Amino acid sequence: MANVLVKDLYTTNEGQKQHQIQISGWIRTIRSSKKIAFLEVNDGSYIRNIQVIAKASQLENFTEITKLSIASAVTISGELVPTPEAPQPFELQAQTITTAGVAANDYPLQKKQHSWEYLRTIAHLRPRTNTFYAVFKIRSQAAFAIHEYLQHHDFVYVNTPIITSSDTEGAGEMFRVTTLDPNDPPKTADKKLDFNQDFFGQETNLTVSGQLPVEAFAMAFRNVYTFGPTFRAEDSHTKRHAAEFWMIEPEMSFVNLVDILDVSESLLKYVIEYLLQHASADLQFLNDNVDDQLLARLQATLQNSFARITYTEAIERLQAAPVDFKFPVAWGIDLKAEHEQYLAEEIFKRPVFVTDYPRGIKAFYMRDNDDQRTVAAADLLVPRIGELIGGSEREERTDVLAAKMKEFGLPQSEYEWYLDLRRYGAAKHGGFGIGFERLLMYVTGMDNIRDVIPFPRIQGNIQF
Amino acid sequence: MANVLVKDLYTTNEGQKQHQIQISGWIRTIRSSKKIAFLEVNDGSYIRNIQVIAKASQLENFTEITKLSIASAVTISGELVPTPEAPQPFELQAQTITTAGVAANDYPLQKKQHSWEYLRTIAHLRPRTNTFYAVFKIRSQAAFAIHEYLQHHDFVYVNTPIITSSDTEGAGEMFRVTTLDPNDPPKTADKKLDFNQDFFGQETNLTVSGQLPVEAFAMAFRNVYTFGPTFRAEDSHTKRHAAEFWMIEPEMSFVNLVDILDVSESLLKYVIEYLLQHASADLQFLNDNVDDQLLARLQATLQNSFARITYTEAIERLQAAPVDFKFPVAWGIDLKAEHEQYLAEEIFKRPVFVTDYPRGIKAFYMRDNDDQRTVAAADLLVPRIGELIGGSEREERTDVLAAKMKEFGLPQSEYEWYLDLRRYGAAKHGGFGIGFERLLMYVTGMDNIRDVIPFPRIQGNIQF
Repeated sequence: MANVLVKDLYTTNEGQKQHQIQISGWIRTIRSSKKIAFLEVNDGSYIRNIQVIAKASQLENFTEITKLSIASAVTISGELVPTPEAPQPFELQAQTITTAGVAANDYPLQKKQHSWEYLRTIAHLRPRTNTFYAVFKIRSQAAFAIHEYLQHHDFVYVNTPIITSSDTEGAGEMFRVTTLDPNDPPKTADKKLDFNQDFFGQETNLTVSGQLPVEAFAMAFRNVYTFGPTFRAEDSHTKRHAAEFWMIEPEMSFVNLVDILDVSESLLKYVIEYLLQHASADLQFLNDNVDDQLLARLQATLQNSFARITYTEAIERLQAAPVDFKFPVAWGIDLKAEHEQYLAEEIFKRPVFVTDYPRGIKAFYMRDNDDQRTVAAADLLVPRIGELIGGSEREERTDVLAAKMKEFGLPQSEYEWYLDLRRYGAAKHGGFGIGFERLLMYVTGMDNIRDVIPFPRIQGNIQF
Repeated sequence: MANVLVKDLYTTNEGQKQHQIQISGWIRTIRSSKKIAFLEVNDGSYIRNIQVIAKASQLENFTEITKLSIASAVTISGELVPTPEAPQPFELQAQTITTAGVAANDYPLQKKQHSWEYLRTIAHLRPRTNTFYAVFKIRSQAAFAIHEYLQHHDFVYVNTPIITSSDTEGAGEMFRVTTLDPNDPPKTADKKLDFNQDFFGQETNLTVSGQLPVEAFAMAFRNVYTFGPTFRAEDSHTKRHAAEFWMIEPEMSFVNLVDILDVSESLLKYVIEYLLQHASADLQFLNDNVDDQLLARLQATLQNSFARITYTEAIERLQAAPVDFKFPVAWGIDLKAEHEQYLAEEIFKRPVFVTDYPRGIKAFYMRDNDDQRTVAAADLLVPRIGELIGGSEREERTDVLAAKMKEFGLPQSEYEWYLDLRRYGAAKHGGFGIGFERLLMYVTGMDNIRDVIPFPRIQGNIQF
């Protein structure tokens, strides 16, 4: 007999009729007397368990079953019985229970609350808790919603390279990639490491962004996107930074900044709608147990337009605010977390795009506005998280871009191919980048990036 | 006026009625006389161009337009006119043409055939050719088809780590990841590199597979998968190897090897069906220009069950074959490309699963069969490509797995977390890995892995 999935019992009418079924899953709780035992079993397909009734009169191996440890894997055949009066909509009256894998008694996730710090030390087991089940289910669904939205809007998915010889931002702290002998690497005549003998014949690093390479594809496919891992070798031990994280970087030809903001707002709303529809049980669990504002915040995000304000206006609003900021506010500063939070949480109380930043604090490839002081760039600031999206028009004028590279101290020789994209028919184009984990923090209510990554990579920590 | 997409003109009835439209795209060819010019314009949304008729009598800037170089970006408003008698189903009679980006005269992709070797040197421009347009469009669609199949079959997507401290296969040549000063790294007392001072406090590498970490999630979500980049620092300069490539690794609990083969066959067929439906114009182009057996091979793949044969039977069939293999055939050998090809192309003439390999030539985590000589593993061999998929049941018996690690020379201390998955309620489980680029070679007809990767990474070559 084939297994049914508990998810289908909860979400289709299969759970409303009495019938014979078989399930396989893991015991989450068990309590028993001499004659009867109640097992909560989770089969992995759904956050909710199925309650199993095991009777000594029915089961030859009743005693053995009652001694099973939490986490043991079992396969159960029996009668599914709807129980509309009970808290659970149905129960499974077992006719046979076979053990598929016995768990040791020292299983670390006994039925009690564990701190998230502790659970990080057992990241290989924590997806078995309800909270992390919900978080990582949502991670999967959110990733798919993003692909679905972009594919259905004619965006072409491009896998830009992970190992790279260039540095998109011109500023990142990067991880070096090498196959040279760590203890006795080859040296040049002047006693430097001889990168010529490394695997790629030169120094290589892990990518900090796929944007530059994906622009090449935007000139062929018009609308494209990356969705892959990116890396920053940053020292910062904040709740919002990890050394390895995933980014989504859509890029479009024949667009301006308004188009870019429209698409990013539409994409975010699609993801939220998708989750409300496909991950409602997981969101409800998180709303009940982690962040009681979660569902209200997601609904509000859907129902309102995101605010849009220029950087110059934002500075004025912050200067007029009755608040003593730690970092003084003046035109030209990079907004700090406290400023971003004040804008999103106090002034607008919803996501807000801040546009047209000073050119000096933004990347070299962003398109200069006619005022010569600002660039056609925008950050989306959201409550609780701060910056979630950064986007811009890209400088498509070859001479302006070349001059700006020089001004920003970038060696033009390494970017000739990038200038080629301008030399050979550059349309006006632009795009945006979403930090996937920041988005997940927004849609799960979790407040530490380490709790939305399966096996987080943080300075000094590389378990698993 | 908003742009329409040329794709919609070709694939909906929008192309069958005369009406006013605007498009933006890039000039692919241009030929002109004093009074009239014909432009082929590609707007990125579709492999086929739209023919634009520009008349001197209509356009103030007619002379300027006729002088534009190939690749220039333009926006065109005019009347779309169906032309059912002509090779093209419609043409655009231009009323205005504005230049969005002028291309330089030395654009490398003039209208002639270029070798694939040459095009690799301009990987930032080659997606503008029809062949690479088709290949990378198919890459995007195939990736989405894989996500769609797995998500709709209740598989949870897991982003396993890229930077890792372990080596899944216990054998791979790996890339090391470091932030230590290349020229003056810290040393230990015995003059070795001091990994304690590296970013993660120990030696770290780029992942060769996400399978081990994703198994942890299969014990929580039942059905899971990875889809991400993996790395091998191999010297081999073959048409089938790259240093950076993408893998899909589904993993399932409560399954046996037959289930695993069934799912992998079903997934592959879904991808092919999806492409035949969504990328038909791209496949047709490749069939007409790259591999005239492509569509027939894909149809045949769909229509027949994949063959299934044990390794032991395969050895017998190869030994009985009237062929002098370069590498002699005997039970216990690892099958070479010539053997794989003979099985898939000559004996079965279709994809064939070879199952139950000798345990000594397969990975430590594969489940021992009762015969003590073989493991419950399978490779899928396909015509033209060879090995496309490798899968197995995983050894879920803690003691057997620990003994096998010792036998294979793996330090148990680094795999305690992996053994935990067995200690705490391991269900029988297993999965498979698909090399995404191998799959793309199969579904595009391209015969070099460098031509299905946007910016391939090969030893000694890290352009872009």
